[in-house]
Amino acid sequence: MNPKEPSRRRFLKNGAALAGLAVGASATKASAADAPEERVDLLHKVGERSHFVDAIRRGSANNPERRLPDEPRNFGISTPLQDSDGTVTPASLHYIVSHGYEPPDINPQEHRLIIHGMVERPLSLSMDDLRRLPSVSRFHFIECHGNSTTGGLGGAARISPDATVQDTHGFTSCSQWTGVPLPLLLKEAGVKKGATWIIAEGADEYKHSKSIPIDKALDDALVAYAQNGEPVRPEQGYPLRLVIPGWQGINNVKWLRRIDLVDEPYMGMMEISRYPRLGLDGKSRWFEFEMGPKSVITRPSGGQRLPVPGFYEITGLAWSGGGAIRRVEVSTDGGATWKDAELQGPVASKAHTRFTIPWNWSGEETTIQSRCTDDKGTVQPTIAEVAKHWGVDLDYFRKITLIVSDLNAIQPWKINRDGSVKNAIF
Amino acid sequence: MNPKEPSRRRFLKNGAALAGLAVGASATKASAADAPEERVDLLHKVGERSHFVDAIRRGSANNPERRLPDEPRNFGISTPLQDSDGTVTPASLHYIVSHGYEPPDINPQEHRLIIHGMVERPLSLSMDDLRRLPSVSRFHFIECHGNSTTGGLGGAARISPDATVQDTHGFTSCSQWTGVPLPLLLKEAGVKKGATWIIAEGADEYKHSKSIPIDKALDDALVAYAQNGEPVRPEQGYPLRLVIPGWQGINNVKWLRRIDLVDEPYMGMMEISRYPRLGLDGKSRWFEFEMGPKSVITRPSGGQRLPVPGFYEITGLAWSGGGAIRRVEVSTDGGATWKDAELQGPVASKAHTRFTIPWNWSGEETTIQSRCTDDKGTVQPTIAEVAKHWGVDLDYFRKITLIVSDLNAIQPWKINRDGSVKNAIF
Repeated sequence: MNPKEPSRRRFLKNGAALAGLAVGASATKASAADAPEERVDLLHKVGERSHFVDAIRRGSANNPERRLPDEPRNFGISTPLQDSDGTVTPASLHYIVSHGYEPPDINPQEHRLIIHGMVERPLSLSMDDLRRLPSVSRFHFIECHGNSTTGGLGGAARISPDATVQDTHGFTSCSQWTGVPLPLLLKEAGVKKGATWIIAEGADEYKHSKSIPIDKALDDALVAYAQNGEPVRPEQGYPLRLVIPGWQGINNVKWLRRIDLVDEPYMGMMEISRYPRLGLDGKSRWFEFEMGPKSVITRPSGGQRLPVPGFYEITGLAWSGGGAIRRVEVSTDGGATWKDAELQGPVASKAHTRFTIPWNWSGEETTIQSRCTDDKGTVQPTIAEVAKHWGVDLDYFRKITLIVSDLNAIQPWKINRDGSVKNAIF
Repeated sequence: MNPKEPSRRRFLKNGAALAGLAVGASATKASAADAPEERVDLLHKVGERSHFVDAIRRGSANNPERRLPDEPRNFGISTPLQDSDGTVTPASLHYIVSHGYEPPDINPQEHRLIIHGMVERPLSLSMDDLRRLPSVSRFHFIECHGNSTTGGLGGAARISPDATVQDTHGFTSCSQWTGVPLPLLLKEAGVKKGATWIIAEGADEYKHSKSIPIDKALDDALVAYAQNGEPVRPEQGYPLRLVIPGWQGINNVKWLRRIDLVDEPYMGMMEISRYPRLGLDGKSRWFEFEMGPKSVITRPSGGQRLPVPGFYEITGLAWSGGGAIRRVEVSTDGGATWKDAELQGPVASKAHTRFTIPWNWSGEETTIQSRCTDDKGTVQPTIAEVAKHWGVDLDYFRKITLIVSDLNAIQPWKINRDGSVKNAIF
């Protein structure tokens, strides 16, 4: 049944107004300063949100207040997925994970991208040079691999019954990225035989660098200068960001200034210390890349409230580093039965995909959840299946999901009789 | 030939840097006020553009300075298409045409959409009600039908040799709109036999209203609460906008509060006085709706400059009210020969479509232009063909394009030997 087909069914039993879905979030305002004339002029140049809109990014549980200028910049700021619609994340709300650096204030006229190392013809490209070259525009998600774990980002909020979907899954965002395909640039430079990795380096103070296998670089990597139709924003890497579709966020190097072709990976700080997880055998798991299939219901979700029984659309997002989302199923009875949700087309590969499904809430306590399948056929697992895969006891696992670097477990939301929606991951 | 296939060709003759495409636009900054602590906090809540980014909306030629608070709000503000990438227009840069009203400051908790008139069950829907109903997300352009004419918006700048693409075509923008399909709401209300039109009314001071045939309302109309993943912005109709895909901008009623089902059109101010054009026979042409197929090269375009001969990607946008863009051809020799451009997929119906084609500029004077074909098979005409269609002398026509309410003529850009790019519509 197609719920969009108006001749098939009606959702309102009569002309009376429905009581809407209440949202428990606080109404913090985020309007800009308003010196009258200047503000009007600015509004014309670049428009602003309504002051009634309260969707904001916020710090993670271990740094909820966000840093101030004199504090260390080691933080994560997540996207308010509970307020998301469609598949585009506004650039202003794209999540950020920062490891201690200020976004550098780069003058694009002075910025260069250097491609060197094991190449026939080293390149030094200005932003204007890049804009002359063939470009592509593609929708891709970028997700911190710590998203939806308790480690690092989510912290205790991840498993709190009061968690919102911003707490549990807010470190993923999706944009239309425009730029030059990296394969084209590598072809221009001429890859020498034996080059097996690239080292991508940013122009931030800490010179973040990341090792990426050359097969991926020659597949679908993108040197992006634009995001959602405008230049990439400073927090996202202005003027240039490397986009490595479907792989852990750390690979998407911001403020990209150098690509070095080499024959072995570089043991960067993020590769040897911060990012690898320890297995139960005590060994560090280096160089994990691809994000698994993941989905989450964004509405109704944690912290929201269903005021009365009746009709509600269930909607959420699904994505996979393995390709396009092929299927999303939703259960509204605690996992006993599953129904196919509708995917809002066109579905792009390695991009957020919006799903919807109609639902009548009886008023009884229940649990709702979604699971997705990508076009490799990989199905999103339950938390119990993840625990089993990694050989850990679920009881132990629920305390520390730290060993799992990409936790893509099914996210259940419990609906109580009073309509409140709670995190039911454990 | 697929220009994205790196194994086929190289664009750089050697490792030396290219000299980039220079842009003549002034570097007006649009950064927000910066009271340090408050600004840092805001930056975390909602991010900001780089202060090096100078793409701004601006007033039309007959009101270039934009109004100030005490001036009448009768103006148009256009999108900087010369700086556009991909197909999404950032909400902050979406064009505006205003007919004398301030955007109303609507509290979404108090806003209602009334559907009444020739219906079985009148409806009064809150924003929360609407969010419970089945939703869709679709990319659609909205275009003022005065876009690319000299009348009203473009003014003399439309035919000036110095026109930028913002001057010639800046009154079109494209967003991912999310909301409830209007057909579903009309089905809920129950359309009475004999209802042939809807009158959509906004909550602005002037109560802008627009008559729309019910067949269109029952086809693909959308009651949109979100734009590019966030609530519709105040200037675009917060909290609710009627989206009438592919039809003249004036139909996309902002601040939507009422839909009245009737059996004849309402003679609204915009329908009887401001918007209809007079034919040469002296008769007014009322109730024109669908926008024809249109395309324009955005880079290189008027006001930009090619610093040296050599390789340049030509890129631009194509769209049609008739459906999806099927084909875009580009000529780089004054219209003598045409080549197929590549369309950046996935191509959505009644949405901006990005096209690209590789080009080597010899350094000689030439003219570049694009023409598109939509999936109805309709081909974008030349300006001479438009003049012939309307039975007017081209010499007369070049002075006043006023009688043509939807001028979708091919836009030629002249490249001079010094690399400067000029408007060559006449």
